[in-house]
Amino acid sequence: MKKQLKGHLLLIGDELLSGRIADANGQVMAKLFREAGILLTGITTIPDQVDIMKKEFQDKWAENDVIITSGGIGPTRDDLTKEVLADAFGKKIIPRDDVAASVTDNYLRFGREWTPTLNQYHHFPEDFLVLRNGKGLAPGLAYLNQGKLICALPGVPRELAVMMEEEVLPLIAKNLAKSETKDYGLTCRTFGIPEERIFNQLVPDLWDRLLKVGSVASYPQIIGVDIVVSMHGTDQDRDRAYDEMKKIILSTPLAPHIWQWGNTPLPEFVLECARQKKITIALAESCTGGLTASRLTDVSGSSQTFLGSMVCYANEVKQKVLGVTSETLEKHGAVSEECAREMVLGLKKNLGADLNISFTGIAGPTGGSVEKPVGTVCFGVSYGDKIFTEKHLFPGDRVRLKQRFSEYGLLLMLKAMEIIYSH
Amino acid sequence: MKKQLKGHLLLIGDELLSGRIADANGQVMAKLFREAGILLTGITTIPDQVDIMKKEFQDKWAENDVIITSGGIGPTRDDLTKEVLADAFGKKIIPRDDVAASVTDNYLRFGREWTPTLNQYHHFPEDFLVLRNGKGLAPGLAYLNQGKLICALPGVPRELAVMMEEEVLPLIAKNLAKSETKDYGLTCRTFGIPEERIFNQLVPDLWDRLLKVGSVASYPQIIGVDIVVSMHGTDQDRDRAYDEMKKIILSTPLAPHIWQWGNTPLPEFVLECARQKKITIALAESCTGGLTASRLTDVSGSSQTFLGSMVCYANEVKQKVLGVTSETLEKHGAVSEECAREMVLGLKKNLGADLNISFTGIAGPTGGSVEKPVGTVCFGVSYGDKIFTEKHLFPGDRVRLKQRFSEYGLLLMLKAMEIIYSH
Repeated sequence: MKKQLKGHLLLIGDELLSGRIADANGQVMAKLFREAGILLTGITTIPDQVDIMKKEFQDKWAENDVIITSGGIGPTRDDLTKEVLADAFGKKIIPRDDVAASVTDNYLRFGREWTPTLNQYHHFPEDFLVLRNGKGLAPGLAYLNQGKLICALPGVPRELAVMMEEEVLPLIAKNLAKSETKDYGLTCRTFGIPEERIFNQLVPDLWDRLLKVGSVASYPQIIGVDIVVSMHGTDQDRDRAYDEMKKIILSTPLAPHIWQWGNTPLPEFVLECARQKKITIALAESCTGGLTASRLTDVSGSSQTFLGSMVCYANEVKQKVLGVTSETLEKHGAVSEECAREMVLGLKKNLGADLNISFTGIAGPTGGSVEKPVGTVCFGVSYGDKIFTEKHLFPGDRVRLKQRFSEYGLLLMLKAMEIIYSH
Repeated sequence: MKKQLKGHLLLIGDELLSGRIADANGQVMAKLFREAGILLTGITTIPDQVDIMKKEFQDKWAENDVIITSGGIGPTRDDLTKEVLADAFGKKIIPRDDVAASVTDNYLRFGREWTPTLNQYHHFPEDFLVLRNGKGLAPGLAYLNQGKLICALPGVPRELAVMMEEEVLPLIAKNLAKSETKDYGLTCRTFGIPEERIFNQLVPDLWDRLLKVGSVASYPQIIGVDIVVSMHGTDQDRDRAYDEMKKIILSTPLAPHIWQWGNTPLPEFVLECARQKKITIALAESCTGGLTASRLTDVSGSSQTFLGSMVCYANEVKQKVLGVTSETLEKHGAVSEECAREMVLGLKKNLGADLNISFTGIAGPTGGSVEKPVGTVCFGVSYGDKIFTEKHLFPGDRVRLKQRFSEYGLLLMLKAMEIIYSH
């Protein structure tokens, strides 16, 4: 069997090391590596410094089959990747007609004309291949030698993902000897029970039993815990292993805590379940401030199912838009199951969706009290004739709490649709 | 002058290399390093593998003054950091009463009782310091030797940031010789003109002139370009350099393209401007699907200014909630300046905010046409007696377009408040 290719990702840019921006490429690229069956051995973030860049290009070339760099191929003087790559592999930079043609084409797709004096895109290392940029202007670079490949892609998220898919992976498929087996992560997603209780109290022998299927890992999520068994093999091996994993877990008291076998993000999963039931959904968000709506509308095709969200941050807006009564606000406060109930009823009346949910809570850092500390949240859920409210208290700071509130609300939508059951 | 401390961040976890999760710690930690005056030399992501972890701990220890690791200190068997750290530095793991006391305290803060049999938190390397976990349960580890420090923090975002601030930085201040100078990034944020035109057409000598202030970098953003001059020195040096940078740029045709001197994120900047004017703001979001509301409500204290957002994804909801007429929808479609105008007028009437904005566009991948391709967006803005609409076309895929629409809408709110002017 051919050996698995080893890959490395080099993120280049002072802006990543100064904290100016967050890396948005690591995860996307890691997924693409995994799906292509290439073992990602590490991700290294380095500054825009010629000596460090050159050393890393050469070191990583020695240890890996595929190296992808991101960043530093733009038109300004802090874009050094092209020059350093040429130097690291002993190539001269020369003006090249084939690269000029590719760049002209990149500009045309944006309805713009390429002006060679504004950048030096067509000055390119000899013996390097030019990679078409399907989503941007700067051309990518590729160097193929001795069955190894190094590619320089843009730092702009999505530009590099698209180039990886459209240009790099086909290059690999054509030129590098690939194994027919892959790494798989088999996932079981649970909620309602902390990590240490699962493995040390509820099912103490679970970890050992799962080790027969593959290597085991446990990942606490925003809400709940993901259990992942990793294995290497063919698609058929994967299917067999997943069946075995399911058999093991479903025979334990962890079974009712499972909300998904697989890796579909929760917003997409909720939309899928609603689409299968041919129902529409709507939200009334106070403490989550539009986060849940935004997560749902990130999913392509959500407009079939998702009608809208009334983000009622101010109390007057809860009254005006959702018809929450001043009595309820005075007697129970905005963060109460009574208010959540009125919000969801007002929402249902207003927008007429089949499945409705309201969120009202305290994300902090201010606004908490002894009776209702920061992290308190109330939900109201209405589906058909069914209506229920729940009150919970979560830990975390403002942004984390918004995520927890949002995630839990989506789980309650699964509960309303009877995809999962509560405890 | 004392030399600047060198730091390295090691992110540990198979889940980062398989693409299961995105790193959420790099940027936060990079900022904390910079603010503390420590030069971050790199960020390295490695798998949960004992041999690789040990080698990296030792290599990075040789090259740096401060090493922070994130991940692998939880209660399950895939949490290996403690064992490998002890091994790498030749220390035994022993049960320790002082650690048990610290862990008991972590649990108490969550209203829980610590059960030593559920984890082994109090088994701890000899000679290591225990770090209090202000936001979680697992204790952090610190090893101080020969004027160097290595700390193992949790992988959970915010847990590690809080531990860095509350525990690690004070340790550094107390035990490591620190320089009194720092790295600074002086930022000028622009919009409305592409990177290559700024430096090669509009102000061809800008880069060279700015080089007299410090090293220069240019970063394309979701909308616009940030120009950053980096320098090293005292706070006074920083102030002088920033004045010099402003003098240079304000004397060029780039001046009217500037929207901020500084690094405040746009949502926070909009809220600040509105707060200064003592006005309230409200949104009607279609294509951005709640993203703008969520970004605004991420900012602590936003409830003073932000009333709410009507996320009207479905056309019926635009009619019901905002009073958009069927005539407009039939004649001009939902993505039209006419519809944007009706949306913002309906919003103003409904919620009564001072500054109102509507978003309606096509985020794709479906729903585009020849006349209105994916990326088309219309905005309606109302402030006092002023009302205006704008139509734009942006490139990108669904998630990127939502961001661009949202960012541009926030810039239009600055325009309405006359903080910036259009071109």
